[in-house]
Amino acid sequence: MSKISINELNYNDADFKARLGGFLSMDEVADTDLLSRVDQILADVKKRGDDAVIEYTNRFDRLNVSSISELALKPADFEVSFNKLNDEEKHTLVESAKRIRDYHEKQSFESFEYQDALGNTLGQKVTPIERVGLYAPAGLAPLASSVLMNAIPAKVAGVKDLIMMSPSPDGKVNDFLLGAAHVAQVDELYCIGGAQAIAAFAYGTQSIKKVDKITGPGNAYVATAKQKVFGAVGIDMVAGPSEILVICDGKTDPDWIAMDMFSQAEHDADAQSILVTQDAMFAKAVIASMEKLIDEMPRHEIIKQSLKDRGLVIVVDNDEQAIEVGNIVAAEHVEISVEDTQKFVDGIHHAGAMFVGRYSAEALGDYAAGPNHVLPTSGTTRFSSPLSVYDFQKRTSIINCSQNGAKEVAKLAESFGYSEGLQAHAKSAAYRK
Amino acid sequence: MSKISINELNYNDADFKARLGGFLSMDEVADTDLLSRVDQILADVKKRGDDAVIEYTNRFDRLNVSSISELALKPADFEVSFNKLNDEEKHTLVESAKRIRDYHEKQSFESFEYQDALGNTLGQKVTPIERVGLYAPAGLAPLASSVLMNAIPAKVAGVKDLIMMSPSPDGKVNDFLLGAAHVAQVDELYCIGGAQAIAAFAYGTQSIKKVDKITGPGNAYVATAKQKVFGAVGIDMVAGPSEILVICDGKTDPDWIAMDMFSQAEHDADAQSILVTQDAMFAKAVIASMEKLIDEMPRHEIIKQSLKDRGLVIVVDNDEQAIEVGNIVAAEHVEISVEDTQKFVDGIHHAGAMFVGRYSAEALGDYAAGPNHVLPTSGTTRFSSPLSVYDFQKRTSIINCSQNGAKEVAKLAESFGYSEGLQAHAKSAAYRK
Repeated sequence: MSKISINELNYNDADFKARLGGFLSMDEVADTDLLSRVDQILADVKKRGDDAVIEYTNRFDRLNVSSISELALKPADFEVSFNKLNDEEKHTLVESAKRIRDYHEKQSFESFEYQDALGNTLGQKVTPIERVGLYAPAGLAPLASSVLMNAIPAKVAGVKDLIMMSPSPDGKVNDFLLGAAHVAQVDELYCIGGAQAIAAFAYGTQSIKKVDKITGPGNAYVATAKQKVFGAVGIDMVAGPSEILVICDGKTDPDWIAMDMFSQAEHDADAQSILVTQDAMFAKAVIASMEKLIDEMPRHEIIKQSLKDRGLVIVVDNDEQAIEVGNIVAAEHVEISVEDTQKFVDGIHHAGAMFVGRYSAEALGDYAAGPNHVLPTSGTTRFSSPLSVYDFQKRTSIINCSQNGAKEVAKLAESFGYSEGLQAHAKSAAYRK
Repeated sequence: MSKISINELNYNDADFKARLGGFLSMDEVADTDLLSRVDQILADVKKRGDDAVIEYTNRFDRLNVSSISELALKPADFEVSFNKLNDEEKHTLVESAKRIRDYHEKQSFESFEYQDALGNTLGQKVTPIERVGLYAPAGLAPLASSVLMNAIPAKVAGVKDLIMMSPSPDGKVNDFLLGAAHVAQVDELYCIGGAQAIAAFAYGTQSIKKVDKITGPGNAYVATAKQKVFGAVGIDMVAGPSEILVICDGKTDPDWIAMDMFSQAEHDADAQSILVTQDAMFAKAVIASMEKLIDEMPRHEIIKQSLKDRGLVIVVDNDEQAIEVGNIVAAEHVEISVEDTQKFVDGIHHAGAMFVGRYSAEALGDYAAGPNHVLPTSGTTRFSSPLSVYDFQKRTSIINCSQNGAKEVAKLAESFGYSEGLQAHAKSAAYRK
C-alpha cells in the first residue's frame, strides 16, 4: 500500500488552471477566540506595563519573577552561551553569519542630491531605523537561523538598538539561539514571549523602551499581535504557509527532488510542495523516491499530510508551460533543477528566491547561502520582496530651493493649488515668487 | 476679538512632553457601520463581478450604464482632454511631470550578482510590479497632482499596465485630471469610485483584470477597502491626517510662515500645523499674521478648526531643543526656515520630506519640486518612507551553487537543519555534498 498520496495534474487537463487555483488558495478562518485574547493582552500591557508583562510571563512560561530586570539578558550573557557551544556549532554560526553579512552588505538605499537647471537642490537622505524589535520563537527547536536572518540586515543597515524577545519556558534558554544573538550583535534580550512581547515592543513599558519596527516569526498569537500593532510601529510581513515550486527536466536524482519536496512539507501541514516536469516518468520516479524515503523522516506525519492536502505534481509539455505555471504560482521558493537554467531565471518574474541548478537545494538558502530566508508567500511575490537591509532604513526627501530657483516651481505650485481648490497652498507658493 | 485660536506651549513647561504627546496622538474611533458597508461591497463585487460594479456605480454616481465598457477611457481619450486645456494648464502638467520624473529616475533598486570564494553565484534580480491600480478621487477638486505623484514613479519603475479608477459623478469627468493621466502615461481608466473600485482592482471582474498593487488616496470607503484587500494585493500606505512642523529662527516674513501653517490646516480639521521657534516675539507675529490673513482664505472655517484642535506654537530655548521636538514629532513635512539649515537637516532623523531654507515652502514640494508628495504621517516617518520607484519594484534572490561550492554551504545548512529539528532540510542539503 502506498504511503504517499500527492495530487497529480496535467497542463492539458480541461480544467487545469481552475484546479491549480484551487490548490493555491487557502481558506482563512478567523479564530475570534484568539483575536479577543490577543486584544486583551495588548490592552492590558498598554495600560499596566511591566506588571502585566510580568504576570503573563509568569503564567505562560511557568516562571516566578518580580521584575523585568530578571528577564533581561545582555551581550555578555550571549557570549557566555556562545562559548559553551562545540566547535562545529560555533563554526556554523560564525561562517553562516559571515555569508549572510556579505550578501546583505550589497543592499542599501542610496542617498542622493542634485541641482536642477534652476539652482534648486533636491535629494533623498537615507537613515537607519533607530530601534528595532526582533522576535524569536523558542520551544523545542529554537530558530537560531531566524536570529541571523533578521538581525544581520538590521545591523548592516545601521540600526542602533536591536532588542530581541524570546520566551524562556520554565526558565530554560537555548545556547545555540543565544549564540546566534552573540554572532549577530543583538544589543539586549528579554525572555518574554507571545502577544505580551509584541505589546511591550509596540507600546513600551516602564522598563522597556518602545521600538520603531518589529520583525521575526512567531506563533498565531505573535502573528496576530503584530498585525494589530501595525501603524503604531512598523512590522516586517505576515507570513503565510511556506511554499516551494521545483521545476525539473528529469535529469536530477529523483531522491534529491523528493527530499527537497519533503524539506518544504515538513514545516507544517499547510506548507506546499509543487513539482513541475515535462517528464511523466520522472514524476513517477520522484513519487517512488518519496515512498522509499518517507519512513526515515522523523516528521513523516506532517510531510504526508502536507503532500496529501496541498502537494502537487504537474506534468507539462514544454518549458513555456513550466514558466507559465511558475508565474501563476508566484512561489516563495523556486528551484530550477534543469540543464538550461537561464531561460527559467529570465522567464519567471514572480518568486521570493530562485535556487538555480541541481546543486542549489532550497535548504542551502534557508540557512547559509547568504540571501535572506524571510520571503513573501501566498502569491505575494507579485508585489513584495525578501527581507533586506532596505527594510531597516528609511528615506527623507530633501527640497532646498534657491531664491531664484523657487520662482518657476512656485508658479507651477500656484497653478496646481488653485486648480485643486487649495488657496493657502497657492498663496504660500506665490509668496516665494 | 481674535479669530485665530492656536495652542501655545513652551519647552520649559513642567509637563511639556506629556502635553505635546497629547496633541500628537489622535483617538481612532472605528466606524463599524462604514466597516460593514465596505465589507458588503467587497464581498458583492468578489461574487458578482461586473454586475455588482455596475449597480454600485449607477447608484452612487447617478449613472445609467449597462456595461463596464461604457465606463472605460483609453489614452486617446486622455489626449482629447489634455488638448482642451489652456496653455498654462498644459505647461503646469508637463513641466511638473518632467520635474517629478527627473527626481524619481534617481531611484531604483539595483540588481546585483557576485561570486563567493567557493564559486557560488549569489544575487538579487529586480523586476517591476506587473499591473498597478491607481485610485484618484474626483469630486469638486480632482487631485491631478496625485495622478502625477503615483503614476510617474510606477512608470519609471517599468510597470506595464497602469490602470486608473476615478468616479465620474453624474457622468462628469475633469479634463485637468485626465490631462494628468495623459502626461503620466496611464494605460486605461475606469470611471468607477469608492469601495467598488478597490474591489474590482483587488479581485478582478469578468471585464477588469485584477492588479498586483493599489496606490492612491481616497475617502474613508476607499481607505477602509484598501486596508481590507491588503494581502490579496499590495497597497501603498494608509495615510493619516497631514502634518507640518515649521522650525523658524524668526527671520522669515511672518506672513509666509502663517500661510505655510494655513496650507497644512486647510486640508481638513484633523490636519496639524506646528511652529517651533526660539523667538517668542516672532511666534506672536505669526499669530498676528494669521489674524490678518485668515479672512481671505476660502477654506477659513477648516483652517480655524484645525489650528484650534491640533495647531501648536512651541517656544524653545535653543536649536537643540528644536531638533529634539522635531524628532519627537517625526512629522510628514518639516520646514527648516532658518539661516543655518545644515544643523537641522543633520539633526532631524525622522521626517517624510524636509523643506530647507526660507524659499522652500511645503506647497512647492506638494506639487512640482520633484520629490513625491505621498509621505508617511502620524509619526510613522520613524519607520517608513515617501512613495517611490522602489514601491513599484520587487526583488528576487538568486542562489546558484556550483558543484564544488555547494559542499561547504551544504555542510552549514545540514548542521542548522539538525539543530532546528528539520531533518529533511538537513538531508536535502547533505545530498549536495
